[in-house]
Amino acid sequence: MKVLIAMDSFKGSISSIEGSKAISQGIHEVYPAAETVTLPLADGGEGTVEALVHATSGQWIEKSVTGPLGEPVEALYGISGDGKTAIIEVAAACGLPLIPRDSLDPLKATTYGVGELILDAIDKGCRHFIVGLGGSATNDAGVGMLQELGFRFENNQGEEVGYGGGALADIEHINTDNIHPSVKECTFQVACDVKNFLHGTDGAAYVYGPQKGATDEMVRELDEGLKHFAERVRDQLDIDIHSIEGAGAAGGLGAAFSGFLNGQLQSGIELVLEVIDMEKQLQDVDFVITGEGMLDGQTSMGKAPIGVAQMAKKHGIPVIALAGAVNQEQFTLNDRGMTSCFSILSAPMSLDDAMNSVIAYKNLQFTTNQLFRLIKGSEAFHSK
Amino acid sequence: MKVLIAMDSFKGSISSIEGSKAISQGIHEVYPAAETVTLPLADGGEGTVEALVHATSGQWIEKSVTGPLGEPVEALYGISGDGKTAIIEVAAACGLPLIPRDSLDPLKATTYGVGELILDAIDKGCRHFIVGLGGSATNDAGVGMLQELGFRFENNQGEEVGYGGGALADIEHINTDNIHPSVKECTFQVACDVKNFLHGTDGAAYVYGPQKGATDEMVRELDEGLKHFAERVRDQLDIDIHSIEGAGAAGGLGAAFSGFLNGQLQSGIELVLEVIDMEKQLQDVDFVITGEGMLDGQTSMGKAPIGVAQMAKKHGIPVIALAGAVNQEQFTLNDRGMTSCFSILSAPMSLDDAMNSVIAYKNLQFTTNQLFRLIKGSEAFHSK
Repeated sequence: MKVLIAMDSFKGSISSIEGSKAISQGIHEVYPAAETVTLPLADGGEGTVEALVHATSGQWIEKSVTGPLGEPVEALYGISGDGKTAIIEVAAACGLPLIPRDSLDPLKATTYGVGELILDAIDKGCRHFIVGLGGSATNDAGVGMLQELGFRFENNQGEEVGYGGGALADIEHINTDNIHPSVKECTFQVACDVKNFLHGTDGAAYVYGPQKGATDEMVRELDEGLKHFAERVRDQLDIDIHSIEGAGAAGGLGAAFSGFLNGQLQSGIELVLEVIDMEKQLQDVDFVITGEGMLDGQTSMGKAPIGVAQMAKKHGIPVIALAGAVNQEQFTLNDRGMTSCFSILSAPMSLDDAMNSVIAYKNLQFTTNQLFRLIKGSEAFHSK
Repeated sequence: MKVLIAMDSFKGSISSIEGSKAISQGIHEVYPAAETVTLPLADGGEGTVEALVHATSGQWIEKSVTGPLGEPVEALYGISGDGKTAIIEVAAACGLPLIPRDSLDPLKATTYGVGELILDAIDKGCRHFIVGLGGSATNDAGVGMLQELGFRFENNQGEEVGYGGGALADIEHINTDNIHPSVKECTFQVACDVKNFLHGTDGAAYVYGPQKGATDEMVRELDEGLKHFAERVRDQLDIDIHSIEGAGAAGGLGAAFSGFLNGQLQSGIELVLEVIDMEKQLQDVDFVITGEGMLDGQTSMGKAPIGVAQMAKKHGIPVIALAGAVNQEQFTLNDRGMTSCFSILSAPMSLDDAMNSVIAYKNLQFTTNQLFRLIKGSEAFHSK
């Protein structure tokens, strides 16, 4: 028996790696000779870098970079085991948690540090980049990052403009003569699960500006800056960075990756499954176990497990999904590739108790154990 | 596929019959052609008569009898579909719930009504009796019942003694000349899960007297009455009604059934499994589903499910146990015949919510559905 364990973390409760260990233990108690393969799963959001670093047997790099408001921050990123791919969460260099709530200022916040991480990885030999957007405190259309990579954005005096979304309106000329030479050799795969264009009422400033500290007036200013910048880019480089689905992600970083760095924006789970080569991992697998803290039958929750399930379904492999809670209303997960879904709870208890990591570990182990006993027990029926 | 559903009620939440319906529905959603057989299960306690009346396609009889304190009560008992067997819960005629708490008085309370039920069933043609002990408000050693059946218990004046545990001390002579003739044709199968002797510190009065309203002094009086009565029986009839395991059940009714009516005391679950002919029911069954509100790995809780599981195990049939809560500590149920055990809970919730019958129904149906999807999904693995 070969079992692939590919679960998301139970957020706030148990990590993907710990949870997978509990599941593996539960299986081996019933099938001691079973081969279990663990692939920590993520959907492009929180935990994605960790999952991919683990999946590629990679290592963590710590690098001091320019934070969103110019202060130095210690940022972590990953390099795959073969040394060729850097795995970067932009929030590590320009994320909301790096700034005290009352200091948030998207007019000033820059993505410069993301560029520094990219250059650091280039120095270390990486030419392929996997980038997780999301959680940025910025609205600079990725200009800060591009500046560090050698793009030059000049005002009408021919001077380099400053940092942040507030400087976009000053940009009149874009100079690409001094781009870092290695940048042109790089490919970028970007996890992006939003479809927003760059500007307008569905754009970066209007939709995400307020949560980054922008007042109504700032939102308008930021949006005008994004629009102005997009027009300059279109006029001078003949690139439409506005109308890309996902351009508005991470304060316009989506536009920068796609329009300037030829990056490929794709859904987080699609990217993750591609990077961990899930198709190949599924070969010869008898059962897949996936899971997430909460499996909801009707919403997009459980994105990562559903991605796994759909791929496994194509291969005809049964998928068991485990969760802290399973919402049974309008339940469609079985139709979306999940053979069966179970809550791991063993008794009535509070959410706090259910999320206790020790209890979650035991419940995962126990439930898996009982399920594999059933699989074993049903052999006689299938052999009739 | 043939599935035998034999679950106890989830006490205070959902009945065995309703719960079985939910399970059956969950199975048929996955295996529409499956044959499901429902046998409501009980362990000799609450719900046993109901389970057996259902299992024997029987009917309910309502009969007005003498209540424990002499007042008339409407008692229900069952007669099996073939009309030959009466199924009686003694509590229906002399149970604690029939008396307001502050009127409890084991010195006076009588089992006379139990005798009336037996005579009524004899009149209707029954000659075999299945009797559930437990929950009685009496401590009269079954003398009230025996009086109604024609036994005569006289004081030293040759007069019939009165009712209740307080009258036992007056008994000097036992007259068996006028026993109802049909009583001698009757056989009694008595569900009894306690091992107490009739009197002494482990006897009926000391162990169960206080919960029937006896003060310390009354307990001593009741115990002396039981001892006195046992001595008279031994001297005059050469029967030792004291040293029978279970003699002390139901205030000494165990002694009466065993010593005077040649009844067979057996464990409730053993009796139930025998009456519903579980051995035969298990023929050609592919899966057994059992369950109980709370499955505890270490205690005697889940007696009925364990009884079923042990019998199914002998036949090599996998058993799925479903419960509201499963206590995983020192879990031994898998070793006792349960292939696998699952809580039906789907999310963290309070005990009250978990016990809501609508929620319990949905959770039973959903969990069963998901489990049978897994059974179906594991066919490919077993067919390799």
